[in-house]
This record gives sequence, C-alpha cells and structure tokens, in this order.
Amino acid sequence: MKTINTIHKKVKLAVLGASGYTGIETIRLVLNHPYIEIIALSADKHAGKELGLVFSQFSKKKFPILQKIHDIDFTIVDIVFSCLPAGSLNKIIDIIPEKIKILDLSPDFRFENINTYEEWYGKHLAASFSKKSVYGLSEIYRKSIKKRRIIACPGCYPTSVLLPLIPLLKKEIINTNHIIIDSKSGSTGAGRTLSQNLLFSEVNESIKAYGNGAHRHMPEIKEQLDKIAKKNINIVFNPHLVPMKRGILSCIYVLGDSEKIYKELKRFYKTDIFVDILNLDQWPSTNDVVGSNKCKIGVSKAHNSKYTIIVSVLDNLIKGASGQALQNFNIMFNFKEDLGLAHYAFYP
Amino acid sequence: MKTINTIHKKVKLAVLGASGYTGIETIRLVLNHPYIEIIALSADKHAGKELGLVFSQFSKKKFPILQKIHDIDFTIVDIVFSCLPAGSLNKIIDIIPEKIKILDLSPDFRFENINTYEEWYGKHLAASFSKKSVYGLSEIYRKSIKKRRIIACPGCYPTSVLLPLIPLLKKEIINTNHIIIDSKSGSTGAGRTLSQNLLFSEVNESIKAYGNGAHRHMPEIKEQLDKIAKKNINIVFNPHLVPMKRGILSCIYVLGDSEKIYKELKRFYKTDIFVDILNLDQWPSTNDVVGSNKCKIGVSKAHNSKYTIIVSVLDNLIKGASGQALQNFNIMFNFKEDLGLAHYAFYP
Amino acid sequence: MKTINTIHKKVKLAVLGASGYTGIETIRLVLNHPYIEIIALSADKHAGKELGLVFSQFSKKKFPILQKIHDIDFTIVDIVFSCLPAGSLNKIIDIIPEKIKILDLSPDFRFENINTYEEWYGKHLAASFSKKSVYGLSEIYRKSIKKRRIIACPGCYPTSVLLPLIPLLKKEIINTNHIIIDSKSGSTGAGRTLSQNLLFSEVNESIKAYGNGAHRHMPEIKEQLDKIAKKNINIVFNPHLVPMKRGILSCIYVLGDSEKIYKELKRFYKTDIFVDILNLDQWPSTNDVVGSNKCKIGVSKAHNSKYTIIVSVLDNLIKGASGQALQNFNIMFNFKEDLGLAHYAFYP
Amino acid sequence: MKTINTIHKKVKLAVLGASGYTGIETIRLVLNHPYIEIIALSADKHAGKELGLVFSQFSKKKFPILQKIHDIDFTIVDIVFSCLPAGSLNKIIDIIPEKIKILDLSPDFRFENINTYEEWYGKHLAASFSKKSVYGLSEIYRKSIKKRRIIACPGCYPTSVLLPLIPLLKKEIINTNHIIIDSKSGSTGAGRTLSQNLLFSEVNESIKAYGNGAHRHMPEIKEQLDKIAKKNINIVFNPHLVPMKRGILSCIYVLGDSEKIYKELKRFYKTDIFVDILNLDQWPSTNDVVGSNKCKIGVSKAHNSKYTIIVSVLDNLIKGASGQALQNFNIMFNFKEDLGLAHYAFYP
Repeated sequence: MKTINTIHKKVKLAVLGASGYTGIETIRLVLNHPYIEIIALSADKHAGKELGLVFSQFSKKKFPILQKIHDIDFTIVDIVFSCLPAGSLNKIIDIIPEKIKILDLSPDFRFENINTYEEWYGKHLAASFSKKSVYGLSEIYRKSIKKRRIIACPGCYPTSVLLPLIPLLKKEIINTNHIIIDSKSGSTGAGRTLSQNLLFSEVNESIKAYGNGAHRHMPEIKEQLDKIAKKNINIVFNPHLVPMKRGILSCIYVLGDSEKIYKELKRFYKTDIFVDILNLDQWPSTNDVVGSNKCKIGVSKAHNSKYTIIVSVLDNLIKGASGQALQNFNIMFNFKEDLGLAHYAFYP
Repeated sequence: MKTINTIHKKVKLAVLGASGYTGIETIRLVLNHPYIEIIALSADKHAGKELGLVFSQFSKKKFPILQKIHDIDFTIVDIVFSCLPAGSLNKIIDIIPEKIKILDLSPDFRFENINTYEEWYGKHLAASFSKKSVYGLSEIYRKSIKKRRIIACPGCYPTSVLLPLIPLLKKEIINTNHIIIDSKSGSTGAGRTLSQNLLFSEVNESIKAYGNGAHRHMPEIKEQLDKIAKKNINIVFNPHLVPMKRGILSCIYVLGDSEKIYKELKRFYKTDIFVDILNLDQWPSTNDVVGSNKCKIGVSKAHNSKYTIIVSVLDNLIKGASGQALQNFNIMFNFKEDLGLAHYAFYP
Repeated sequence: MKTINTIHKKVKLAVLGASGYTGIETIRLVLNHPYIEIIALSADKHAGKELGLVFSQFSKKKFPILQKIHDIDFTIVDIVFSCLPAGSLNKIIDIIPEKIKILDLSPDFRFENINTYEEWYGKHLAASFSKKSVYGLSEIYRKSIKKRRIIACPGCYPTSVLLPLIPLLKKEIINTNHIIIDSKSGSTGAGRTLSQNLLFSEVNESIKAYGNGAHRHMPEIKEQLDKIAKKNINIVFNPHLVPMKRGILSCIYVLGDSEKIYKELKRFYKTDIFVDILNLDQWPSTNDVVGSNKCKIGVSKAHNSKYTIIVSVLDNLIKGASGQALQNFNIMFNFKEDLGLAHYAFYP
Repeated sequence: MKTINTIHKKVKLAVLGASGYTGIETIRLVLNHPYIEIIALSADKHAGKELGLVFSQFSKKKFPILQKIHDIDFTIVDIVFSCLPAGSLNKIIDIIPEKIKILDLSPDFRFENINTYEEWYGKHLAASFSKKSVYGLSEIYRKSIKKRRIIACPGCYPTSVLLPLIPLLKKEIINTNHIIIDSKSGSTGAGRTLSQNLLFSEVNESIKAYGNGAHRHMPEIKEQLDKIAKKNINIVFNPHLVPMKRGILSCIYVLGDSEKIYKELKRFYKTDIFVDILNLDQWPSTNDVVGSNKCKIGVSKAHNSKYTIIVSVLDNLIKGASGQALQNFNIMFNFKEDLGLAHYAFYP
C-alpha cells in the first residue's frame, strides 16, 4: 500500500449505504481528501439514480450512479467504507474480495464476544471474520488499525465515553464500581429511519431519556472497558435524545481525584490532534466540536463531593462515525492523520 | 380567609416583576382562575405602559397599568405574587404590609440557613422574615403553606429532584452516599436576562453542561434533603442547557432496589393530582408535561447494575415556578388544588 | 338544542381520528369546556387501548377506550368532531345518524364545487351532503353555522388568509389581479404522517418553500374569494415549512391604500373576540398567538411602493383547526363564543 | 500580484472585527485556504486575549493575539478583511495604508449614492473612497473586483435577490412594476448583538416578519437593480426572522414567463461554479446550501397565474458574507475561484 502514499495515486473507494446519514457524511468528508476517488456508491432503494437528484446539495457534481450492492464491480475498488445499518454487512461480506480492506461504521465487527453481539443485534453470519477486525478507536488502537483487514469503527456514544475513560482505567485512578454515564445525543444518531418519535413535531422542544437503563451501546462500552481494566467493570449508561441534529455530550461521573484525572488525560492525549483536554474546570459545549473531527473533554471536581465530572463532546457523524473512519483510513495508508479532516467547528 | 372561599369573592392580586418570564406566566395562569383579580402589576422598566403593548399576546385585554413597585397601593391588595429575580424581594419586603401574604418565586426565603443563602446569593437584608416563611413544595409542606405568611416557592430544578427523592429518604431505601443528579433545562430557566450565551445563535443545535460542578440550586436541594434525612447528604448536581424553551428533565442515579423505589413513590403520591408515577420502566419526556402543572416520574433498574435510574420531568415555568405558586395559593385559600391549573400538556 | 344550553346538560361528543394531531388537540381543548363530555374516541390503529397509554400526557385521566369508527354507538352521541384526514369522512359519513351534527376538520365538505375537490383530493362519495354543509369560517358564516348539519372547518392556511382578505374584497378596496400570498407554517400542519422530509434531522435548521406554485389550499382560498368578490380572483399562494412545530404566518401583498385597509379591518372585526387588528405598522409574530384561538393581523405600507403588506398569524392547530371547530360548536349551541377557548398565547 | 499566485507565497491577512459572526466565519474559511496566512486579528473588547479562549473551537490552534484595531501593524499586512459592523470602517479607514486592498463585509462602501447610505446608516466620513470601491457581487462584477481597492461585499439578502434578478432585468423579460421579495433569514443575520428579541426563548418556535415594509437592504437591492435596468425599479422587500441559525431563502414573485426566466438564468450562470440553477420546478431548501458558498435557485410558474415564483437560497454567513469575500479574494489574486471554498452543504 505504501506506493499509493508515495506516488499520490488516488485510492479507489466504494461507499456502501450511501443514502443514510453516515453515508452522506462520508461522501462529504471524503471530497475534502486529496487522495481518494469515489468509484462506487451503493443505495439499494435509489439504485439507478444520480446522487445529486436524491441529495440536491450535490446537484452539480459528477458521481458514480447509485447501485445495488450486488452490482458493484469490486475488482476496481481499493477500499470499502461500509455505512450500512447494524446487521447488514455481516450478511454480505462474502461478496467483497479478501484483499479489499473494509472500514465498517456499523457494530457488526465491533465485538470480540459474538454472544454479546447476538444478544443485542441478532444473528451474526460472519463471526469468523471478527479475528481479522480491530475496534477502530483511532487514538487507542493505531497499530492494529494499520494491520487488520476490517476496521470496526466505534459507535458515537462509545467514542465519547471511551476516550476519557480508557486512560483512567489504564492508570487505575478511578473507582470502577461507580461509573455513571449520562449521554445526550442529537437526532442524527438515530439515522434516517422513519419513526414517529423522530418527527420534528415530536422531537422539537422536548428531551427524553431512552433505553430505560438498557441501550446497545452499553455492552460495546463495557467490552472495551473490561478489556482495558482486565476485570468486570459495572457502568450505568443512560442516553438521551436532545432537540438538535448533531452532537453528543457525555457526562461521566467517577470517584477519583479531579486533578489527577485531568493531568493523566492531558498527558495521555498530548500528541493527539483530535482529542483536546481543556483546562481544569473549563467545559466544552457541542458547538465547540460539531463540524469537526474533534473530541473535547473537560474535567471538574463536583462541589462538596468525592465525585469528579468529566464532560466529553463530539460530532456524532464525524468523530463518532465518518470522520473517525477517515482518520482510520489515513492511519492505514500512512497519510497525515488529519488529511481531509482539518476543519474547525461549524459555529455559529 | 375562609369567607373568600365561601362567597367566592375574588382575591385581589399584585404581581411584582410582571415582565419577566415567571411574571408573564403567572399572569397567563391566573387568568384561568375564577377567583383571582389582578389589581396591580409592577415592572420598573416598563412603568406607565399597558401590558398589552409590551406583550402583544395580551393586546386586547384590559389590565392595570404597569407600575414601579414603590407606587403600588398595597392597601387594596389581598396577596402578592413576587416574580422578582433573586436578591430583590429581601431588599423591599418592608414596604408590603404585614397582613398581606406573599408567594415568592425567588430563592430569597427558601433557606433556613441564611449563611448558605448569603454564600450563593449575596447579602440578605430581611433574615428575620425567614421564620415566617415555609419552603413551598406543595405536596410536602401543605400544612405549613396554609399557615405561614411567606411561601418560598422552590426552584425549578429542586422541584424536579426533591419530589422523587424526599419519599425515598424518608423511608431510607436508598444509599445516601451516591446520589448523582444530571438535570437538563430549557432556556427559560435562565430568565429574560440579556446574555450572549442565551442568544438563539448560540443555543440552538448545541447542548452544554454548566455550573462546572457548582450550581446554586445544589445547596437548596441539599438543605431540604439534609432536613428530611436528618443527616448530611452528599449529592452531585449537574445542570445542562438544552436547545428548547421550556421543560426540565432530571435523571437521578441512586443505589437502591428499583421495585421498592417505584412502589414507595406510587404509594406516597397516590392522592396527589399533579405528581404522576408512571408504570415501572415507563419513562416520561418533557413534552408529556410542558404546558401543565404536572411532575411525571419514571423508574427503571439500570441494566446489569445496582443503580436505579429515576427520571423526573416538569415544566420549569409551571410546576417549577408560577404553577406551583398558584397551587400554593389554592392550598392557602382552601380552593381545590387544581383550580385554574387543570391543563394537560401542550402537545405537540 | 336550546335546552342543553339552558339547563347546562353536557353535550355528548364523539371524536373521530383521536390519535392525529388535530384529534389530540381537540381533546385537550374540549377538556377545558364545562359543557362537553367525551363519550367516544375513534383511533383505528390503537383500538382497544387507553388514550393515556398512547399519549402519556393523559396518563392519569379516564377516557372512553379507543375504538374503531364502526364500533362507535352513535345512538348516545350528540355531536361528532371529525379529525380524520382528507378523503376519509366522505367515505363513512353514512354510518352517522342524520340527526347528529358534524364538525369536520378535513377538506371533505369545504367545497361547493365538487369538481374542484375531486381535482385536488380524489373521488368524493358523498357529494350530495355538501348541500347540508357550510364553510365554517366562524367570523364570516356564523348564521349558517347555527343552522347547517355539517360544519366544514376551514384549513389552517385559508383561515389565516381569508380573515384579512374577505373584508377587503367585500369593500372592493384592493386590486384583485395582484394578490400574492406567502405563507409559512410549522410542521404540525403536515400532521403525524411518517415522511422522511418531516424528520427532525431534515426539518431543523432549514426552511423550504413547497408546493412549487400549486398547493391544495389554494383552490380552497380561491373558491371562497371568488364567492365573496363574485368574480374570478387570481391569487398566488406559496406555502413554506419552517423549523417550528406550531404557528402560521401569512404575508399578503396587495395593491391598495394601507390606511383604508387598516381601517376597514379594524371596523369589520370590532366585535370579534378572536380577531385582533393591531395598530397600523405593528406586526405580530406567531408566538403572540400560538396556544390561543386568536388571529392577529398587522398592516403596513411597503416602503416606496403602492403595495400594502398584511401580516396574519394564528395557531394552525387551534384557530386553524380544533379551536375554530370548538368556536363553531359554541356558535351552534348558543354558548359564549370563547367558552373553553379564553386562553392567551403560550409564551415564552 | 501575479507573482504571489505563481510562487505560492502566502498572502498576509488582517481580520478586523474577528469576534463577530462574520469575523469568526472568515477565520474558519480562511484556514482552508492554502495561500493565506492570518497575521493580525482585531477585536476591541477582547484585545490581549487568545482567540482560542474566546472561541473554544480554536482552543488548540495558534493565532495572533487579539488586538485593538489601532494597535495593528499594517506594514506587514497584504490585505484586510473588514468584518466590522455597519458604520465603523468609514470612520477608521484612514489608518489603513493606501496600498492595502480591503474586502469589506459591511455596507459602508456598497452605495454609489452616499445620500442613500446616510439616510439608512447615518453619517459617512469617507465618501470619497467610494470611487475606489466596487460592489462585490462576484458573478456580476468580476472585472472591477480585480482592479478596485475596496471590495464592498454585498449584504446577505441582496446577494440572494440580485443573483436571480440581474440577468432577468438585463434581458428585460420581467415586468419591473410588480417585483415582490419575501425573504426569510436565520438568526445569525442579526449578528452577535445583545438584543432581547434574539434570545433563544424569544426566537425558537416562532416566526416574524420585521422591518414593517422598510429594511435597509431594500435600498441596497434597489440601487443595484436601478443601475442594471437603467430606470427606477419599484420593489417590495419583506424580511423574516426564522428559528434557525443560518440560511436565507428568498421568494421572488415576478410577472414573466417561467420557461424564459428559467432558460435565461441557466444560460447566464452556465459557467459559474457557485450559482446553481435547478431544473424547472425543482426548488431548493436552505439545507441544500448551508455550509457551502453556493446559491441555488429554483423557478416555477405559479398555478393558474401569470406570476413566476423564483426561490433562491444561500448561507448568509458564507455566500452572503465571508465566503463571497473569500471568493472575491480569489478573483483579486487570480486563484481558482473556489480555492478554499469547495465545500458541500453541511447536511444533515
């Protein structure tokens, strides 16, 4: 693969699931990347149409015609970005030639324990492929990301939670029995699915907690934390739907010294361009990151309490999905990690 | 006072601070009450104007001309609703004749410990009046509300937190060392104050946690909980600003058995018309209550955890402010508790 | 019917289509009316369920169980509020006994010219009933509303447009060749239908004009205007979807003297409680009316031009639907016109 | 200037008014441009601070310290982007050395007729400079933009209105007596000014028309149209505030043949990368353009009418402000017109 980087030949990309929100966002981001060429786009429902007719922001730009996945000629493809919903890629992965690497934005290959996957997502038809995959949390698993065939890009909530927690578990500076995670997400986290409770008339001017104590990003977070801590970590994970389109803000309540926590995070992410540990007691809002591939993290001691509050924000469609996938692409191909991703938050 | 109720003579009301959000909401609600007559309205900045010119929703209705507080003729007033901001009423309470009862929506008389008040809000000039006041959490302090002169109506966040927690502390069925409160509020909680970070361009499409671990509703909650539990309770209280105008949703994480918690809440509020304990594992959203004087509460066990999640919602301007004040008015005057307040959520 | 009014016996009401937005709004409003009893609720998809389980804002209140329309016992019903979507009532009206009056919120009986209806809405199976119906624009057709069996309550856009235009056409003080109507609506105008372009992720932070020059409220407006003007009136009607849930604002551009227009509107609606002509050059916003049954209208001369701009606002679910239906109910039953409707805008 | 382009030396840029919305947006966009170096930033209120502390989206990036305008060393500056509010630049332009070109985003140098400027904006202290300026509507005035010292970048509303109207006036294919412009803008159009009616609690869930028939973008539009048409054009211009942060949608009602209009616009903008004439009867929404430097335009015949409706959308902070300024910069310096501006709409 090195040659590609050296001579700057464009990498030929197929995007599967191009008409969902992460599909569209992948296309938007990839158009900023100087060494990627979009060679194929799948969107079963819109097969045969021009992308610019379905999404008129692209109306004047030439793209490959939308196809059914099975009609894609994979022999001309270098790499696949799969933006299919949960439970789809594991059913069709056989049609993608072995030599093609896959950046998967779905949960299909995120779990080492297939039983956990099947408990939350249903039958998995390609369990054996999991050995070729790595959990694509860029800052933590760079080395494996370079080597593995399938990069299982993390969920949006897990990215916002694992980036602050992993360094703390590694250093064992927080109590692992009392980790409370209260996460808030914009509506695009739920995708473009038609659902009455995602209508504007239902979502605007209202907030709700959902999952009722059990959400499928919880086992994903837990598997990663258990692995890092080498023990059984009990977390509470409680996601909310907020009347905004993009952005995740996770508040993590931990027992531990806030200064130590702050310093360890600062140290751990010192050289990471996309993770930004704010000054102690400085907290981010989602509009500091939406539009960028950043994760910003603030730390404060809770008043009059032994708890520390960690506030973590990111753009669920960028660092929580397509952006992290592109970051992983850059890692795989030895590009600068922020190539095509050096954008600042879209504010106001 | 009984006579008023018996012969249905209208109670003559003065609203102080009529041009803030709680002032306007008080007027809107009071207009639904058959036995209240608005006799005076104060709004220093707009003194001399018609209410309907400042707030054109009232353009065709006759009201008393807006006045400066010091110009109000209190001799014709039966009761005062004070919607002044924090720190104002304690400076001018002397001008209100002793015989007039006061429903105060500010924090000025909420604290038994004046030191706590002064630590968070600044100098208090009428500390001695605190003995005549009661914390106006309607469902908990009805008896005192009937008797005291000053009803210090609770803050919006505290109402959403205390209603679920007080019964549990009374029964001692939760661990008091691990109470995490993650609250989310709409923008009207911040009032009509001019502040750059309350501009639409800053608030929409963004969420932020604020207070950085220390918010002045925390000591208010804590004083009430300590009193009920008869010991020092340590809580974490973390409020958020959500891109919506009205509504509060508080998630309270407690160590305790979810079934027991649910049953105790159900039992405790069995006869309370405005507190609604949903079925176990049924969670409310703010649009189930916004527009009404209801507080709805849901309870669930957190998956695979010893924690229970309690979700509590209310309209910050109604049950969290003007509505609870009117409910207290009904209690004071022996009216049916929901007189003028029997409205359902304004949905969609 | 007079007896009902005199002895205040409650009128027994059936609501058809109770689970749509106008259905829910009808229920919410009717609960404020002292002389209405809800005796039956239809919602085909939810038949057999409690209303409070489908819409948890009603969770503690007793209602008749949701039924299929054909299971309703109409012998115990005094009046029907039909909140069914366009094209439904004309198919099933036969099952409602002749003596029962009907307040229809759909377009089914709004047209005198059935051809026009069929051109825009499809086949009409009960054309003969149109003779028993009246266009239920309360302020204009009170006399017929008292007498007819079917009250075809106007569409939300037409109400906002006809109230200002009808008096001007009657007086012939505007040029009828240049009437441009640019209307903006919140999302509830589209109902609860599942449609990708009504998702929060599509609607928030965006505005669009739709209909592309042809919207089915245009012929409804035109038929009424033609009738009043006794000639063929050509209008341009261009509706927009705005990122808000409720409210319509219509700007109407007419050639005519702004002072004359203002004075005629002021005169015409002098005694109408729900139509409020603001002072010349004072313009309303939708949050002056949302939550109320008001229509507020502002008039200004366009700078340096022969055109006058008329701005008209209302709540599409209240004065544009359920509220006007209830107003018509009050007219039919000789109640005070604002009985159960005397609310001010839900602001902020 | 050609040398700069040839040898790719970076152009040294000073941004005046860096802390307003157009200032921040200018910085965000300019960071995407390979041949610009930000050498100075003015923000009087924040002088002495780091940009990243005021706007935490920039927290990890190095910028020149914020300065007072008068402290800027203009000897090291190649070009100035002035993002100051209306009425500021004309007061201080003397301190900028003659040889430095200025891209001004304010109205100060947009008017040829200084009387018109002064009627709407107040005293102008540098009227003589107007001769050195050009109205910076990129697609129309490219030649002069290359040559003049001051580029007076157009207002956001005028850009959305002039791009569709200018070609039609040039060809004389519309009636110039009946041009009605109904424009809708997001809140950032009003800037970061503190104003009660721009608070989230006032703006969300509401729409209003403002200006009451007279808005200062009207004379700006009119001066340009008069110049093109070489006669006195009467327009109606009516702007609205919509509950969204970004985006303008202008509906323009004209008397003229829709096919001819469509074809002329298509022809006129055939080679313009940023102006996109959609297919006949295809209409854009603002989320097709927000985040990009595009103006998209749709054309339809109004049903049953002689009027044609033209719908034009753009991002008020990009094509309506900072983006058009950067486009003009590219024109001035012979760069590709979309250098640093080749972004697609930020959707969803």
